[in-house]
Amino acid sequence: MSSPLARLPAEIVTTDPDVLESHARDNAPLCAHGTAAALLRPTSTAQVAAVLELASRHAIPVVPQGARSGLAGAANAVDGCWLLSLERMNAVLEVDPVDRIAVVQPGVLNARLSRAVAERGMFYPPDPSSWEFSTLGGNVATNAGGLCCVKYGVTADFVRGLEVVLADGRVLRTGRRTAKGVAGYDLTRLFCGSEGTLGVITEITLALRPAAREPLTAIAFFPGTAAACATVTACMASGVVPSMLELMDRPSMDIVRGYRDLGFPPDAGAMLIVQSDSGPPASADLARFAEIAQSHGGETVVADDPSESRLLLEARRSVGPATELLGAYLSDDVCVPLGRLVDLVDGVEKIAAEHSVLITCTGHAGDGNMHPTVVFDPRDATQVHRAERAFDAVMELGLALGGTITGEHGIGLLKAAWLEKELGPVSLAVHRDMKALFDPAGILNPGKVVRSRAARP
Amino acid sequence: MSSPLARLPAEIVTTDPDVLESHARDNAPLCAHGTAAALLRPTSTAQVAAVLELASRHAIPVVPQGARSGLAGAANAVDGCWLLSLERMNAVLEVDPVDRIAVVQPGVLNARLSRAVAERGMFYPPDPSSWEFSTLGGNVATNAGGLCCVKYGVTADFVRGLEVVLADGRVLRTGRRTAKGVAGYDLTRLFCGSEGTLGVITEITLALRPAAREPLTAIAFFPGTAAACATVTACMASGVVPSMLELMDRPSMDIVRGYRDLGFPPDAGAMLIVQSDSGPPASADLARFAEIAQSHGGETVVADDPSESRLLLEARRSVGPATELLGAYLSDDVCVPLGRLVDLVDGVEKIAAEHSVLITCTGHAGDGNMHPTVVFDPRDATQVHRAERAFDAVMELGLALGGTITGEHGIGLLKAAWLEKELGPVSLAVHRDMKALFDPAGILNPGKVVRSRAARP
Ligand SMILES: Cc1cc2nc3c(=O)[nH]c(=O)nc-3n(C[C@H](O)[C@H](O)[C@H](O)COP(=O)(O)OP(=O)(O)OC[C@H]3O[C@@H](n4cnc5c(N)ncnc54)[C@H](O)[C@@H]3O)c2cc1C
Ligand SMILES: Cc1cc2nc3c(=O)[nH]c(=O)nc-3n(C[C@H](O)[C@H](O)[C@H](O)COP(=O)(O)OP(=O)(O)OC[C@H]3O[C@@H](n4cnc5c(N)ncnc54)[C@H](O)[C@@H]3O)c2cc1C
Repeated sequence: MSSPLARLPAEIVTTDPDVLESHARDNAPLCAHGTAAALLRPTSTAQVAAVLELASRHAIPVVPQGARSGLAGAANAVDGCWLLSLERMNAVLEVDPVDRIAVVQPGVLNARLSRAVAERGMFYPPDPSSWEFSTLGGNVATNAGGLCCVKYGVTADFVRGLEVVLADGRVLRTGRRTAKGVAGYDLTRLFCGSEGTLGVITEITLALRPAAREPLTAIAFFPGTAAACATVTACMASGVVPSMLELMDRPSMDIVRGYRDLGFPPDAGAMLIVQSDSGPPASADLARFAEIAQSHGGETVVADDPSESRLLLEARRSVGPATELLGAYLSDDVCVPLGRLVDLVDGVEKIAAEHSVLITCTGHAGDGNMHPTVVFDPRDATQVHRAERAFDAVMELGLALGGTITGEHGIGLLKAAWLEKELGPVSLAVHRDMKALFDPAGILNPGKVVRSRAARP
Repeated sequence: MSSPLARLPAEIVTTDPDVLESHARDNAPLCAHGTAAALLRPTSTAQVAAVLELASRHAIPVVPQGARSGLAGAANAVDGCWLLSLERMNAVLEVDPVDRIAVVQPGVLNARLSRAVAERGMFYPPDPSSWEFSTLGGNVATNAGGLCCVKYGVTADFVRGLEVVLADGRVLRTGRRTAKGVAGYDLTRLFCGSEGTLGVITEITLALRPAAREPLTAIAFFPGTAAACATVTACMASGVVPSMLELMDRPSMDIVRGYRDLGFPPDAGAMLIVQSDSGPPASADLARFAEIAQSHGGETVVADDPSESRLLLEARRSVGPATELLGAYLSDDVCVPLGRLVDLVDGVEKIAAEHSVLITCTGHAGDGNMHPTVVFDPRDATQVHRAERAFDAVMELGLALGGTITGEHGIGLLKAAWLEKELGPVSLAVHRDMKALFDPAGILNPGKVVRSRAARP
């Protein structure tokens, strides 16, 4: 019998080992990956359906891929799989300024849509830091967050409807084009964040908003994390509506200090970066923020115009490049209730000391979603081991504080074992049943998110 | 063998036929209901679990009930069922101003929570018109909407996590306490709007917001629906952020004219009622709205203070009582893309003429979610028949315009056949699989939302 691949249009199939190797993994360090049998790049829903129907029939694992910018190994190859890249399905099908929606194929980059709608006076808020290079299909499949979630919500909050190819090749349409709707079960949300384990997203209907004003920025320096975190909770309870509210702890500030001189006060041990795009007076929001920060001992700088604003933002933007310079790093993503933010940041500092590793703690403080980032030398096995243990300790802490192991980066391979801990036995059983319902043959991104019973240690 | 009811604590069981009859149905007219075997009023999750475990074992249908204010027959008794009222599980377990969440039992009335959090400087936005007498469990199970959805979203947008008793009595916890989270599949949303067909909600974690300012109101009168609808779309695209945007068509205005004199201009054939709670200058939003309305030929009245605001709101508030005076009525709930709003309102007028019935068309115009309401004399069989046909024609129109048969009231019994039409064969099959997964014995609110294959004509 000829290979099932022969049944697919030749122009969508690649089996070149170099290409396969270069597509074997996403951006997550320390995640295993296997060797794929082929890379498939369909250009239509019908082709995706043909692929899945064939894969189901021959029990071939299928790993959907967007831009492979993921941080959880969710797009990593498994042995013998077909990598199903959606990159060629990259048409913006419709932008409607009256209904305020966009209909896109999954391979469209976030930045392309965001710019296209901005040109027409509209706004697509979800802004993962990877927005320039990640796909909307990947954003939906991971339910990506970003900087402005604190005001506007996450990707799923903008998904009105989906076209999804099911494991057996049937094409399902979920949701709607309208602002509201309660006809039947919310299947749309079920696919958001399901990381390619329940179906392959082939079309997305997204809600848009009217253009927002260009945000203004303020920063505040604090002696330590307690004052910074108290400012965050006070600010969020005050009626100030930040469109961004980020925290940097002392190690984050220190690595930025080492990277470039942004004039941080030498005694500052924590800082907040806040934006408001409220209108007309974003400045009123920022003035109120400054008042709150000062009442907690903060020293504030408020930008008067957009260009000064962008300057203030450089502090936050420098964390990434400053980290890259230090070596490999493992970025965590715990999210805790706002009242426990200070316990998280302080706890991470303790974990760093206990495990003798550098951990910076930066993140979306207004949502309680921090990215403690463990820096290590990948060539040093003991450092790698210490980094992994510190990483686990951070998740343990997040759960102990009533939080979750992942606010926006997802489970993938990286946290599949930890997910079982967070869910507990009843929810885990329901997750497995759900997976079995949508993917009875177990071909969709196997081993990711929900591991089969056999995979358990 | 003794009745399974004997295994339950006597104090939660009622079999008095009068009580059963008075609990046999919700607020939907023209929906069939059966005769229950018992009314159960548990006071704890453990009791709910015992009820479901027993019901599963003996294949007894269970119909969850909140306040029975539903408009789709979703809480109606089926023959031989146990009515499972959550009304005694009515504790507000926690209100946390720092984490900005409330944890409640399902029997808490929306108004009770809304007032409790307002007293503490917070805001629970979801405001179905039934907020004074509907339960939060019912609100979640129907994913209730309301007037301020246009700015703040629907009930599900505020549900962070749930405790749900599954059909077999297992207790599932979904979601989280945190602002964000992507650990596993979104089971929380799956239960939102599932109308008691997938599980019984026994605890709800709700997100709160900081208190909003008291809204200001404006109204605008137009010669006809075209100008009113064009104002709606222009307003929603403009960056004005209304916290309410309601439309009343000519028949709605006429019945209010007959009910009380609110000084509507005699030649006005449509009106909009808009609110803004933006701050500080809600008045800026309203001035911009007035400008847009005037550019479409509208005549506007803008309130300068909260008390004048409440006065202007009387127009909208009078529609309900004015309708009640006319006899029985069947309230529809279609939602269309904003660009088709005018086609919906005009189409409803044509349907009224074709079927010789009175249909008023009022609703949440900013979301495209209208409540065309067919008025009829329930003692006149031909009128009832005409009303039902007109009601169907309105749903047909909603679907033809790319909309949905229900924006917020749900499917229940009333629209179960129509749901099949809206979903189509693949989605219907997935819905049935989902129902079978959570409720293999088919005991949970049978016949509602997703009918079994056998029930099809
Ligand atoms: C520098 C950097 C910054 C980042 N910042 C953020 C951030 O701020 N917020 C955030 O949330 N994430 C962030 N990420 C993580 C990542 O960019 C997001 O998870 C993004 O949504 C992944 O999109 P992608 O197209 O790269 O998907 P991939 O990485 O290719 O895939 C991600 C998952 O989605 C699945 N998938 C992809 N496309 C489809 C489809 N069409 N149908 C079904 N399943 C599919 C894959 O199987 C995989 O499980 C960042 C990553 C980097 C490298
Ligand atoms: C005058 C009036 C105005 C209304 N205005 C609006 C409006 O503006 N917006 C709107 O959306 N709706 C509105 N409604 C409809 C209705 O009030 C809502 O659907 C409400 O959410 C129902 O709540 P309830 O407690 O009465 O639930 P019920 O009517 O008792 O039940 C509704 C459904 O939820 C299920 N259910 C109830 N509790 C639970 C539970 N704990 N676990 C699982 N399932 C459960 C029931 O089985 C049923 O399927 C209105 C109704 C009236 C009479």
